[in-house]
Amino acid sequence: MWGIIATWRMAREGVEAAGDMLAGGGSAGDAIERAIREVEDFPYYKSVGYGGLPNEEMEVELDAAFMNGDTLEFGAVGALKNFANPVSVARALATGDANNLLVGTGAEKFADKAGFERKNMLTDRAKIMYTKRVAEEGGRMPDAVRTLGEPEAEQETARGAMSGREAEPPRAGVDQEGTDPCGHDTVGMVCLDAAGTMTAATSTSGLFMKRPGRVGDSSIPGAGFYVDSAWGGSASTGLGEDVMKGCVGYEIVRLMGEGMHPQQACEKAIFAFSKKLEERRGHAGDISFVAMDAQGRWGAASNIEGFSFVVETETEPACVYLAHPQPDGTCTHEVASQEWQDAYMASRMAPVTLD
Amino acid sequence: MWGIIATWRMAREGVEAAGDMLAGGGSAGDAIERAIREVEDFPYYKSVGYGGLPNEEMEVELDAAFMNGDTLEFGAVGALKNFANPVSVARALATGDANNLLVGTGAEKFADKAGFERKNMLTDRAKIMYTKRVAEEGGRMPDAVRTLGEPEAEQETARGAMSGREAEPPRAGVDQEGTDPCGHDTVGMVCLDAAGTMTAATSTSGLFMKRPGRVGDSSIPGAGFYVDSAWGGSASTGLGEDVMKGCVGYEIVRLMGEGMHPQQACEKAIFAFSKKLEERRGHAGDISFVAMDAQGRWGAASNIEGFSFVVETETEPACVYLAHPQPDGTCTHEVASQEWQDAYMASRMAPVTLD
Repeated sequence: MWGIIATWRMAREGVEAAGDMLAGGGSAGDAIERAIREVEDFPYYKSVGYGGLPNEEMEVELDAAFMNGDTLEFGAVGALKNFANPVSVARALATGDANNLLVGTGAEKFADKAGFERKNMLTDRAKIMYTKRVAEEGGRMPDAVRTLGEPEAEQETARGAMSGREAEPPRAGVDQEGTDPCGHDTVGMVCLDAAGTMTAATSTSGLFMKRPGRVGDSSIPGAGFYVDSAWGGSASTGLGEDVMKGCVGYEIVRLMGEGMHPQQACEKAIFAFSKKLEERRGHAGDISFVAMDAQGRWGAASNIEGFSFVVETETEPACVYLAHPQPDGTCTHEVASQEWQDAYMASRMAPVTLD
Repeated sequence: MWGIIATWRMAREGVEAAGDMLAGGGSAGDAIERAIREVEDFPYYKSVGYGGLPNEEMEVELDAAFMNGDTLEFGAVGALKNFANPVSVARALATGDANNLLVGTGAEKFADKAGFERKNMLTDRAKIMYTKRVAEEGGRMPDAVRTLGEPEAEQETARGAMSGREAEPPRAGVDQEGTDPCGHDTVGMVCLDAAGTMTAATSTSGLFMKRPGRVGDSSIPGAGFYVDSAWGGSASTGLGEDVMKGCVGYEIVRLMGEGMHPQQACEKAIFAFSKKLEERRGHAGDISFVAMDAQGRWGAASNIEGFSFVVETETEPACVYLAHPQPDGTCTHEVASQEWQDAYMASRMAPVTLD
C-alpha cells in the first residue's frame, strides 16, 4: 500500500506528481520532497515558497521541515531567506546526530555551502498585498499578527485566525484559504511508500506580517508535523503558536500508535486541545491536520470551517475534500466540486491591484 | 505546597534564591526567571549564558525559553547573540497569540526594542577552550558536533555524548558535566508556587562547536521543556536533537496528567524513547530530565551515569542529587556529598591555559 495526504487544495498537483512516483516504486522521501517543491514553486500561492507573503519588514522568511519515519531523523529550517526550495534544504539537514534545525543566517550559510538555488522569493504580487495591508492600517506599521485575538484586530486584520467565533459559511464556494488575511496556509504532507517507509514534510512563509525571526510550528517536530513509520504521520496548518502549545502533531501520531484510526486521532487531538485553549486563554487559533497511518488509512480534521485537503492512495485517485467540523467534535468530509476548485484557483490567480 | 527542581548542580544557588522567593509567596514566573538568571550570570558555567562555549565560528549563540503552565503560553529565543539574560527575553515573548518563538537577528531586534541588556557573552576562558579544541583537531575547523556518533569522533570529541556505550564511573567524584566535551549542559527548571501556578524555563549556549543558527530542544515546547499547571512540568538536558525526535518533555507531562508519579514518568519516557532510538538508529544521545507535578512531587531520570540535579520544596531544603540509571530502566538518586560538590566547583573554576 502507498499513499500521500496534504493540507489545502493547492497541494493537488504536487500530490498527483508524488502519486505517480509512488505508483512506480518511488520512495516516500523523494515523493514528498517533489510534492512540496511543486507548491513552493507555484507563484500564486501566497503562503508557501515563491510568492509567499512577507513579514512586517517586507522580507519573505520561510519555514520548512522533513522527517524520516524509519529513523525519526528530521531536518528543518526556520526564518530562511532567499532560497527557492526550503523543503530541500530541510531534507539535507535530516541526517547526522546534531545541527538538524538551523535558523536565519546560519541556515542560509548551510544552504549556500550545500549548493542550493538562491532566489529572491518576494514577488510583485506579494509586494502589492503588503502595500495594501499597510494602507489598510492607515500607514502605520501593520500590527496584525501581534494583536491577533484582540477584538478590533479580529475584525480588521485577523478575521478567520481565531476559532470559537461564529463559523462563517465558505464565501461563494471559496474556502478560508481564499479569504484568511493572516496567510498561515502551510502545505504539510504525510507520505507512505510501497516499502512501508513514511515521511512528513512542511513548507510555509508563515504568518503574514509576522515579526522578523518568527518561527512557527512547521519547523518543529511534534508540533506542525511528526512521523513514525511504525505508527503513522501527521502534518498541520493553522496558527503555529497554538499548535506548538499542545504538541498536537505528536499527539495525533501517538494516538495512531495506540491503534486509533487517523480520523479519530485527528478529531480527538484537535478538539481536546482547542477546548483546553478556550478554557485556559479564552480562545483557540485555527488548527487543522491531515494524517495517515502505517496501513495507508487516512484522516483530516479542523476546528474551522473551510479546510481543504488532498489525498491519493494506491486504491483512491487524487481527490480534493472539504472538512466540516461538527458540534460533537467529529469532522465530516465533502468532495470538493469542480465549481469549488475552479473558484479556488480563480481566487488565487485573480489580478491584485493597489486601488 | 511550593517547589522547584533543576538540572545540574550548577543550578543550586539559583534554586536557593528561588526557594526564598517562593517561601515568601513569590510567583513561579518570577522565581524561575530569577533562578535561571543566576546560572546565566555565573561566568564559570561553560554551557549557559555568560561564559558559554561558542559555535564553530567562535560565536556564543544562546537558546532559552519560558512557559506558563496556567495558559500554556510560551516564549522562546533561538541562536540569540549578545544579550545577558536570554531567559528574560524569552519570558517577554510569552504573551500574545503569535511571534512567541523568535530566532537570530529577529530575536535580537526584539530584545533591543524591549530594552534588554546587551552583553558580549564570549569570555576569555571560553576563547581558550575554543582554541584548544581547534588545536586538538590539528588546526582543522573542529567538526565535533556534526560527526557526533561516528566511531572516531566518539573517542576524540564526543565522548560521553552517546549513551549505549559502556558507562564510565564518575571520575574522581566529578560528574559527566565536568568531563563532557560537548558542553550540552542546559539548565532547565520546573517551578510550582503556593498559588498552584507552574512554570518551566531553560537556558543554554547549546552544543559546543555547533553550526551557526543551530537551535536545540531548549527553545522548543514539548521537547526540552513543557508545563501544564493541572498536570506538571518537565525540563531536560542532553542531546537536543534526540530529545526533539521524541517530544520527550511533552510525553513526561502527559504521563503525569494520567496520574503517573514524576519519577516513573521520567523513567518511562526516557528509557522507552532511548530504546526506540537505539533500535532505529543504533544509538541514542544523552537524555536527562527533571519533573515536578501539580502536587509538588518530583522526579529525575537519565540514560547516562553522572547526571546531577537540585530540588527544593516547602518540605525539603535545597539538596543536590546524583542520578544513577539502573539496568531495569529505573533511576536511583544519591545525595551528592560535600566532597563531590567541592570537586564539581573546583573543576568548573580550575584555571584554563593554552600550554
